[in-house]
Amino acid sequence: MNFHIMTLFPEMVMNGLNTSIIGRAIDKGLLTVEAVNIRDYAFNKHQSVDDYPYGGGAGMLMQAEPIYQTYQALTGKMNLPEGRKPRVVYLSPQGQTFSQGMAEELALEEELVLLCGHYEGIDERVLEEIVTDYVSIGDYVLTGGELPAMVMVDAISRLVPGVLHNDVSAEFESFQDNLLEYPQYSRPEEWHGRKVPEILLSGHHANVEKWRREQAIIRTAQRRPDLLEKAELSEKEQKMLASIDEI
Amino acid sequence: MNFHIMTLFPEMVMNGLNTSIIGRAIDKGLLTVEAVNIRDYAFNKHQSVDDYPYGGGAGMLMQAEPIYQTYQALTGKMNLPEGRKPRVVYLSPQGQTFSQGMAEELALEEELVLLCGHYEGIDERVLEEIVTDYVSIGDYVLTGGELPAMVMVDAISRLVPGVLHNDVSAEFESFQDNLLEYPQYSRPEEWHGRKVPEILLSGHHANVEKWRREQAIIRTAQRRPDLLEKAELSEKEQKMLASIDEI
Repeated sequence: MNFHIMTLFPEMVMNGLNTSIIGRAIDKGLLTVEAVNIRDYAFNKHQSVDDYPYGGGAGMLMQAEPIYQTYQALTGKMNLPEGRKPRVVYLSPQGQTFSQGMAEELALEEELVLLCGHYEGIDERVLEEIVTDYVSIGDYVLTGGELPAMVMVDAISRLVPGVLHNDVSAEFESFQDNLLEYPQYSRPEEWHGRKVPEILLSGHHANVEKWRREQAIIRTAQRRPDLLEKAELSEKEQKMLASIDEI
Repeated sequence: MNFHIMTLFPEMVMNGLNTSIIGRAIDKGLLTVEAVNIRDYAFNKHQSVDDYPYGGGAGMLMQAEPIYQTYQALTGKMNLPEGRKPRVVYLSPQGQTFSQGMAEELALEEELVLLCGHYEGIDERVLEEIVTDYVSIGDYVLTGGELPAMVMVDAISRLVPGVLHNDVSAEFESFQDNLLEYPQYSRPEEWHGRKVPEILLSGHHANVEKWRREQAIIRTAQRRPDLLEKAELSEKEQKMLASIDEI
């Protein structure tokens, strides 16, 4: 899978993605990540890429043409079937909220373009022309689209087959079954007077699994009841949960 | 405001936060950001910070003691009133979902500690001992807590008085009034056959404002109806919206 990030801050993006997992996946040829500087496609000698908004208002807007030129340069190098355009995600608070399901869907793409806005936004017309998906990583305001793009690359990369050490690892993670993760413990057995739950030391695999699933259900009920509504619980588990609610 | 980030990847965090806005705020003395390497507080000669989880399972856990030692070193340098502990946010899919409201609340803290997990998680006992807030930036799985910590620092920093160029800029941004932003246009007046809406060229300030507010309402209705439910609309605006729904 090939990620192409259109940004005014390519170094920030590349440095922030420089993790062992993504690095290893790139070395293995499973992924490529390139950050292209929109400023390289400015059409004037001052390399400016922004201008005042029509109708007034605070701040500057990114202009249409440099972004379009960057896009043209990127897509020109892609190996897409004739007439097929790549998915282009514009990172924006206006977008659909990013989710694990969306990450799974986007991980199927061969080429993915991420467009990072800055200043007060981007001229609407170039968005209409090239953007296929508007995505927000959450309901908060950030300086630009760079951190959200990095978040998306990280979440999507993990789902590309072969990227994680073992596929088991991704499978058993949070949001599996719409449950949060159970608590975990490592050495020593006692730390600051706090002991590891005995069941985890028992060596009884089935009991450990049962305890972990119960803990995951209890924790989800306490912290994210909205998720629990979507989880499939057995009759026994529903009773267990009800008995806790009563306490 | 002082951010303290506990991480195994301090360089990644510092490079990714190296934006002009945060850099300027640091130069002005409005913010400090430090990333402390948990590995520096490993208690064995191999500098290992992780071990197998009790009860089995894939992957490694971060152990309690190095994290606790890092925390002790950090808080020892803080100027907090006797007996007062700093807020410590653990970035985790198990947490409460980050929002603009939470960013506003956290921006009032003098000291904020962000704890980034890696591998399969962190020994539960150190979390119980030091963590005050569990925060998730969204319902997706990431490699570690570093990108979420950077997202939080970015969103919170912008709300510290004096950090943004002009306070107007933050005030009129997305999520203000629970409405998404209106479309914006910059030069040229015509681009790829697409013209700037005439009203923005009219110079009639009140009409421009009215058009922008309408566009914001329409866009929010189309893309994020969940937000619109919380927005306060005038009677006229509700009628305008109803007439669009009918089309």
